[in-house]
Amino acid sequence: MAKKISRNTFIMENPPTIYSYASVAGKKESEGPMGKYFDETEQDGYFGQKTWEKGESELIKRTLKKAIEKGGLAPKDIDYMFSGDLLNQCISSTYGLRDFEIPLFGIYGACSTMSEGIALASLMTDSGLGGKIAAVTSSHFCSAERQFRFPLAYGGVRTPTAQWTCTASGAVILSPKADAPYVRAVTVGKIIDLGVTDANNMGAAMAPAAAYVIETFLKDTAMEPSDFDAIITGDLGLVGSRLLIELLREDNIDISKQHRDCGMMMFDREEQDVHAGGSGCGCSASILCGFFLDKVKSGEIKNILFCATGALMSTTASQQGESIPSISHAVFISNESRFKENMG
Amino acid sequence: MAKKISRNTFIMENPPTIYSYASVAGKKESEGPMGKYFDETEQDGYFGQKTWEKGESELIKRTLKKAIEKGGLAPKDIDYMFSGDLLNQCISSTYGLRDFEIPLFGIYGACSTMSEGIALASLMTDSGLGGKIAAVTSSHFCSAERQFRFPLAYGGVRTPTAQWTCTASGAVILSPKADAPYVRAVTVGKIIDLGVTDANNMGAAMAPAAAYVIETFLKDTAMEPSDFDAIITGDLGLVGSRLLIELLREDNIDISKQHRDCGMMMFDREEQDVHAGGSGCGCSASILCGFFLDKVKSGEIKNILFCATGALMSTTASQQGESIPSISHAVFISNESRFKENMG
Repeated sequence: MAKKISRNTFIMENPPTIYSYASVAGKKESEGPMGKYFDETEQDGYFGQKTWEKGESELIKRTLKKAIEKGGLAPKDIDYMFSGDLLNQCISSTYGLRDFEIPLFGIYGACSTMSEGIALASLMTDSGLGGKIAAVTSSHFCSAERQFRFPLAYGGVRTPTAQWTCTASGAVILSPKADAPYVRAVTVGKIIDLGVTDANNMGAAMAPAAAYVIETFLKDTAMEPSDFDAIITGDLGLVGSRLLIELLREDNIDISKQHRDCGMMMFDREEQDVHAGGSGCGCSASILCGFFLDKVKSGEIKNILFCATGALMSTTASQQGESIPSISHAVFISNESRFKENMG
Repeated sequence: MAKKISRNTFIMENPPTIYSYASVAGKKESEGPMGKYFDETEQDGYFGQKTWEKGESELIKRTLKKAIEKGGLAPKDIDYMFSGDLLNQCISSTYGLRDFEIPLFGIYGACSTMSEGIALASLMTDSGLGGKIAAVTSSHFCSAERQFRFPLAYGGVRTPTAQWTCTASGAVILSPKADAPYVRAVTVGKIIDLGVTDANNMGAAMAPAAAYVIETFLKDTAMEPSDFDAIITGDLGLVGSRLLIELLREDNIDISKQHRDCGMMMFDREEQDVHAGGSGCGCSASILCGFFLDKVKSGEIKNILFCATGALMSTTASQQGESIPSISHAVFISNESRFKENMG
């Protein structure tokens, strides 16, 4: 059973295994530096469907299906799942996953959803509450643009700080202790709102939430940035990433060597015209499942701290002049299941 | 630690206590048969704010604050919370709860949110993962109408099967075993979609999800409807309630004596012109926290099965001709903490 060592942080007693995982991404993502790492890529933005929203549902469906297949499993083998996405009322998840007939806990953490899902699935697994528990999320550029910004046909000009919502999805299936990679600890974030109101600069809004959860995790576990091969944020982008490094430096924490931001990794910013980088629930989920987990599994890298970052605003809130509350949860994933002496 | 007895159902080993709970509702709700049971009611639809959305955030904030106060607690005493609501990107929760600085797991289950939140909080509590864990949700007639149907000023005519989204909120705080009421078991639902496409008849869409979870719970625990004083659904309304009874009768389960639907309880349908009844996350949450929990606590009633019911659609999905997938989770709440011989 997981051990609660602070208000926010849980150490896994028998670190759950990320038993299977999969990633699927779209055309633009397939052309970027991460393209070769995804399990599948799809050149059709509609994923064979009639609308972008149905396309995103198809995307998340294919991703969970792939994770189930890669694990040699069937949907009936999954006890239950955690899922959510950016679309209003999380319809990518509900329409995309309904045919699996897997019991569902719907979650919403904006682009922090993958961290939240893995955190909850890990806590449940380590508490003996399931043999196989899935966590899955998605995002889609076209459905997100239409919902949060402008219809694509409008041709709105993007600001330099704007990010590009990735068409991508990631799914993991947790299992009681087996082989690496293991989830060894999680830190639950809280809402942080420093008053940023620019919906075209969400990286800046989310950086303080990432800083909070990283600092809390390190303090609670008595670990150092140098214990990690990578400290991964979801989609802070260029602006938010710089801000994160600065914020932590103010507290004498230097993660500049370890920090990787999935929003910065997804595209070639020079070639692919994505301004401040990628974003979306699927950005960090697909890069975790496509790029990082294979490396942790093989032992090429040992320890990562995965902190997907979410901006908890809506267009309605923005139109009412509200600032952008943000949240991030930290998940410590490792090639090794045993604990350091000073942990816990 | 909770014991998993089937794919869907968990029995609590040391049933967590619903340590504190609170309900706040709006003007129309205050005038209905439930009005006298709420902790607070508010005659101003804006709850002193400038917009309905900000009003709903104020509503959920007051409700959690009240639950914390009733328990003699401070926000720092709450380890973390589960919260979600109907507004796009769950902004009632994120803006309403940000000032508490309590670690947050955002959830989305549409109007099933209160069941989902209590289920997760109970599983975590019984697994030793928190001393005090909150679950909270809200809904608001005006913000919901604007988002899901028509602006109020448009004066759209409501169909006979349409329901009235309640302006109401409920919050519970779970704690390791203390006094009644106890959460003794939960059954996690799955998405059920029988193809209903009428967004003005959500009760009919949700009834099969309620039937599924009630039947699964009874089968898994070997309990009978007669073991319960009330089997409570969230917001099936008149049409959905009749359908639920019928669906279960087909499987030789008769809950007609025990069934109570919060959507039917909230208003006087003759006097208050609400057509098929009330609805919304806050409908079942406020009636659970305002009406039922006091009776279970005092022992006036012993056992209830609380099954909030959620329609997982969005306006976008409806406009694309999609049917309405639904979900419900069951929570067994009791005055007694011990188990029946045949349970588990």
